[in-house]
Amino acid sequence: MNDPQRVAVVGATGYAGFELAQLLLRHPKIQKPIFYLRESSAQVKCLTEIFPRLRGWGEAPCSAFSVDAVAASGAGTVFLATPHEASLELVPQLLNAGLRIVDLSGAFRFRDPETFAQWYKLPAPPRELAEEAVYGLPELYAGQLPGARLVANPGCYPTSVILGLRPLVESGWIARERGIVCDCKSGASGAGKELKRELHFVEVDENLRAYSLFSHRHTPEVTDHTGIGGNDIIFTTHLLPVSRGILSTLYVWLAEPHTAADIEALFRQFFAGHPMVRIWPAGKLPELQHVAYTNFCDIGFALDAGGRRLAVVSCLDNLGKGAAGQAVQNMNAMLGIEEATGLR
Amino acid sequence: MNDPQRVAVVGATGYAGFELAQLLLRHPKIQKPIFYLRESSAQVKCLTEIFPRLRGWGEAPCSAFSVDAVAASGAGTVFLATPHEASLELVPQLLNAGLRIVDLSGAFRFRDPETFAQWYKLPAPPRELAEEAVYGLPELYAGQLPGARLVANPGCYPTSVILGLRPLVESGWIARERGIVCDCKSGASGAGKELKRELHFVEVDENLRAYSLFSHRHTPEVTDHTGIGGNDIIFTTHLLPVSRGILSTLYVWLAEPHTAADIEALFRQFFAGHPMVRIWPAGKLPELQHVAYTNFCDIGFALDAGGRRLAVVSCLDNLGKGAAGQAVQNMNAMLGIEEATGLR
Amino acid sequence: MNDPQRVAVVGATGYAGFELAQLLLRHPKIQKPIFYLRESSAQVKCLTEIFPRLRGWGEAPCSAFSVDAVAASGAGTVFLATPHEASLELVPQLLNAGLRIVDLSGAFRFRDPETFAQWYKLPAPPRELAEEAVYGLPELYAGQLPGARLVANPGCYPTSVILGLRPLVESGWIARERGIVCDCKSGASGAGKELKRELHFVEVDENLRAYSLFSHRHTPEVTDHTGIGGNDIIFTTHLLPVSRGILSTLYVWLAEPHTAADIEALFRQFFAGHPMVRIWPAGKLPELQHVAYTNFCDIGFALDAGGRRLAVVSCLDNLGKGAAGQAVQNMNAMLGIEEATGLR
Amino acid sequence: MNDPQRVAVVGATGYAGFELAQLLLRHPKIQKPIFYLRESSAQVKCLTEIFPRLRGWGEAPCSAFSVDAVAASGAGTVFLATPHEASLELVPQLLNAGLRIVDLSGAFRFRDPETFAQWYKLPAPPRELAEEAVYGLPELYAGQLPGARLVANPGCYPTSVILGLRPLVESGWIARERGIVCDCKSGASGAGKELKRELHFVEVDENLRAYSLFSHRHTPEVTDHTGIGGNDIIFTTHLLPVSRGILSTLYVWLAEPHTAADIEALFRQFFAGHPMVRIWPAGKLPELQHVAYTNFCDIGFALDAGGRRLAVVSCLDNLGKGAAGQAVQNMNAMLGIEEATGLR
Repeated sequence: MNDPQRVAVVGATGYAGFELAQLLLRHPKIQKPIFYLRESSAQVKCLTEIFPRLRGWGEAPCSAFSVDAVAASGAGTVFLATPHEASLELVPQLLNAGLRIVDLSGAFRFRDPETFAQWYKLPAPPRELAEEAVYGLPELYAGQLPGARLVANPGCYPTSVILGLRPLVESGWIARERGIVCDCKSGASGAGKELKRELHFVEVDENLRAYSLFSHRHTPEVTDHTGIGGNDIIFTTHLLPVSRGILSTLYVWLAEPHTAADIEALFRQFFAGHPMVRIWPAGKLPELQHVAYTNFCDIGFALDAGGRRLAVVSCLDNLGKGAAGQAVQNMNAMLGIEEATGLR
Repeated sequence: MNDPQRVAVVGATGYAGFELAQLLLRHPKIQKPIFYLRESSAQVKCLTEIFPRLRGWGEAPCSAFSVDAVAASGAGTVFLATPHEASLELVPQLLNAGLRIVDLSGAFRFRDPETFAQWYKLPAPPRELAEEAVYGLPELYAGQLPGARLVANPGCYPTSVILGLRPLVESGWIARERGIVCDCKSGASGAGKELKRELHFVEVDENLRAYSLFSHRHTPEVTDHTGIGGNDIIFTTHLLPVSRGILSTLYVWLAEPHTAADIEALFRQFFAGHPMVRIWPAGKLPELQHVAYTNFCDIGFALDAGGRRLAVVSCLDNLGKGAAGQAVQNMNAMLGIEEATGLR
Repeated sequence: MNDPQRVAVVGATGYAGFELAQLLLRHPKIQKPIFYLRESSAQVKCLTEIFPRLRGWGEAPCSAFSVDAVAASGAGTVFLATPHEASLELVPQLLNAGLRIVDLSGAFRFRDPETFAQWYKLPAPPRELAEEAVYGLPELYAGQLPGARLVANPGCYPTSVILGLRPLVESGWIARERGIVCDCKSGASGAGKELKRELHFVEVDENLRAYSLFSHRHTPEVTDHTGIGGNDIIFTTHLLPVSRGILSTLYVWLAEPHTAADIEALFRQFFAGHPMVRIWPAGKLPELQHVAYTNFCDIGFALDAGGRRLAVVSCLDNLGKGAAGQAVQNMNAMLGIEEATGLR
Repeated sequence: MNDPQRVAVVGATGYAGFELAQLLLRHPKIQKPIFYLRESSAQVKCLTEIFPRLRGWGEAPCSAFSVDAVAASGAGTVFLATPHEASLELVPQLLNAGLRIVDLSGAFRFRDPETFAQWYKLPAPPRELAEEAVYGLPELYAGQLPGARLVANPGCYPTSVILGLRPLVESGWIARERGIVCDCKSGASGAGKELKRELHFVEVDENLRAYSLFSHRHTPEVTDHTGIGGNDIIFTTHLLPVSRGILSTLYVWLAEPHTAADIEALFRQFFAGHPMVRIWPAGKLPELQHVAYTNFCDIGFALDAGGRRLAVVSCLDNLGKGAAGQAVQNMNAMLGIEEATGLR
């Protein structure tokens, strides 16, 4: 039986992987992580060869990945910072080898495996694993995380949208028949490190563009976890000329007038005891810079004078609470470590 | 009687004023403009002293402003790139002196002068002038521009929103009872040249923030010219880390399903004969970079598979079609010059 | 015999090519240009398919490239916005077909063809063509441009450096034995449109890096046209987080003390009659924003109190005076059109 | 006698002050810091009121500043993140009250008090304090820090320049008669939080400008601590469109040829045992992103094939090693805490 507080990371070469490496190298309650690289990077011996900015932080040893190597390493918990296809293939093998998994890909985020197949144009994951996987949004599903074998780390956009909407949906205050609009904006690191024309500096700089309207893969996460049917919600995404951060502006119409104090109290009660969500006082709004390089999701709102038109602003760092930070938060919860450890 | 094609500009020291100066200095159908500066800049003799990048463009002579000086200059048309308060005061005097005016401030944008007073916390303009002023959106009000004495140049946000929504409102296809959401994003030049903490480079760079929610002064322009009542529309504004450009994402729910071809045809018919609005083919969306340094308003859209959820993207350069370019377009229309002259 | 004022462009799909297309489409003294595309873009019928922001500018017809097609088109002058290898191959063929050429590549920039072969790791061009080609810096070689068959458009960095240093070198005031340092900074469009990790938005944003130190291909242009031997000059390049513009800070030590008035007069005299170089008054320095979207090279300087340490700042838009604008300026000179036509 | 590990901060409202607050709030070896605010901020009770992004980090209590309040607080060490004038006045008073001081202003950086008076146009500090103050560059003056009463924290530019040049100067390898050129580039936070036209977002974005040539206040720090006379060094500064970071490119000519291995070894030996300076292997160069949000100074170099032209690239975060990080490093050294504590 491997040690759960001994941690392995598979595939730490992307932006989220780098962030994860930084967090785990500094984490006070786990042992030094071991990094496993795939394919072309497999000859790398230390993560500083890929990320020179890690020099001087201490050792970050790398090995070529194989399931056997991870299993033999003594690690009990493994992070998969791998493409969807790779996670689909590796999760069953690593579970069989007795490891607990936090998977940062989309492969196990949906209870219905066909949802994944349809939106990602890839084979469906095994149904029993899709059903076993915990959707790793600790503010909503904290109870399911301790002892979980497989946690599917949420998408960056859905984290911001679901945390901003869920208290309102549960309150019953929303005029659902009017529909909800989620206008989301993200920095470029959210699109990954792959080389694409539309991510070239000259194409992003001094620009803003909407993309993947009505077709973004994060859509079913939003509908699954807000409980708002797909025809009553519009979820859109825009690419900002910044490196990191997501700001989602969420529009709801209230069935009856409420006061700003009502709204603030609703959010504060919902997230009481959850240190990684910060509620802003009525009349103040969070900004991208407030959450950059943190694991916080900041939520503020503006209400019209009539008390029925409501705009909620939900902000996070797409590499923090939107990816690597949340993965560490999930690991903490799985292992019984205080939720915010290593994240402040 | 002064020559209408002889043009004066009052207050060309801000970002929109500079843009206006560039456009007028290159305009092929008018005489060289004369620039009148107020207060602290009044000793400047040539605009290159304020804007060194104009050097080598030819002369741009400046004089100290007074109503008499403008009237005596021979100019028949005057642009006011002045603060709201100054325009309030100067418009009656310059009209009395026989000049025709394009006013870039907000002072005469509302038929009801109390609307201005309420939203801008300033005295109301004279009612007869507020009623006489033409709202200078040439794609909607072309017929009123020739011969007009006073044109109120629209706000940058309203231009993008009204052009994007008006065809849909007039079509009767919208499920108005569900409401409309306008999520607008602007570059920092739209906030003007004034020194404010929130416009310091470090505060804008790598940031995004929503501001003035439910209180932005451009709100009543949007409701007046879309015809959507204030309780059924949400209009929000965000500050982007770019210098110029506005992108508005406009959300409407259709009462009955339509096809993308329907929507595209609706927009194309509405703007037929209006060269400064470019409609994008279904499935393609305009971006900020497409309109930067132009006078175009680009409009595209995405429709969901069910044909009832619609997102319209409307883009323009806030200093071009959102301010100085539109002012020149209005001048062209006032003077009987072809609409796009000097704007391509 | 084809018409020289009928112009063809080969390969207008990169950033400089797009800029060239914009300039030529607006140029008042030539006929509408014809665009020839190579390989994968060869089925494109109009340049707006590649560059949607050109929509509404009028037609920009494209054809598949072949030497015969260009020769049969009636065009007498052709711009090559092609890779070095392609220009090497096409220049002899197009000259044989009777065309006059402005080549934006590096292939014919060096009198000694071996210089090209050595620095670009490509075959040398034919010696007689290398010797015939005019180095297209109109401020230095205006006399050789009218009637030239082949003009090699200079590199962006060398244009800024040579214009900033040449007056000083010719003055004899420099303490050459101390050496000259050229610290140059460029926006990302100068590195081209190719997909490279180091041009991904996230890698350039909020960053600055020096690159190609002592190995940049533009080095021999600098030494050839300043006359400073390679061991006495250091030329370095840095990548800025901006899209366009080059600012070169050039350091020289003067053998004897001079006044700022001396230096300013030297530059003014040297560039008298050259409208595309703007000399700044002593004590004022040009900035990137002053030259963005122009064909100007702006030159300013600072001199220490002792009159012997001198820093010259030379700025241009790498796509303007550093590429496409200068190519048009060269065409103007070749065809006897006033130098600045179409460039203001 | 107050407790040296109990720390007070005066004036934490600027960018460096905020950075300092973050570092001290997380520092594992000192007690929670107390913040003292001056003038208009004096009614603030918690630093989160000024810096909302600190919410959720724990308490950061603020008090109105007075010398007596600080002295009575129990704090033994005080950071002054105050303007030069304020430090001039406060340092003698706080020393008299028995406190040890790290001063982030320029007031006590020069052994000769007249140097300060001349370059800063302010009164000279008391000579005995100017002479007592330790210039807080721990890599050079580590021996003087333990037990020091007054440490003058260096300027951001000088830190990068001095660390990059000092090994070469001491080696004797430089051809000093040829002079040294230091071309430095900084992000906008280095210019402080004050509202100035030239720091408005629109003025910095997509721009680069050289400023304060031959007159920058950091000049005498560079000459004092490199030992290169003012006529033999050119030190220039440029404003980058980034928020944080300094990259200095330093040019020296070697008297005799050396190999890259020689140069690398020289730097490695010089900085052996100094964990906050990272030497890059020959052929690799540090970039701004490598040091952002760290206390590292990264140094790399490029040598020409002849072994005599050398460009050294020295990078740091102007708010980290260039200000607040270095201040904490100095505090660590003063108090006998391991140098890098709280800085990784």
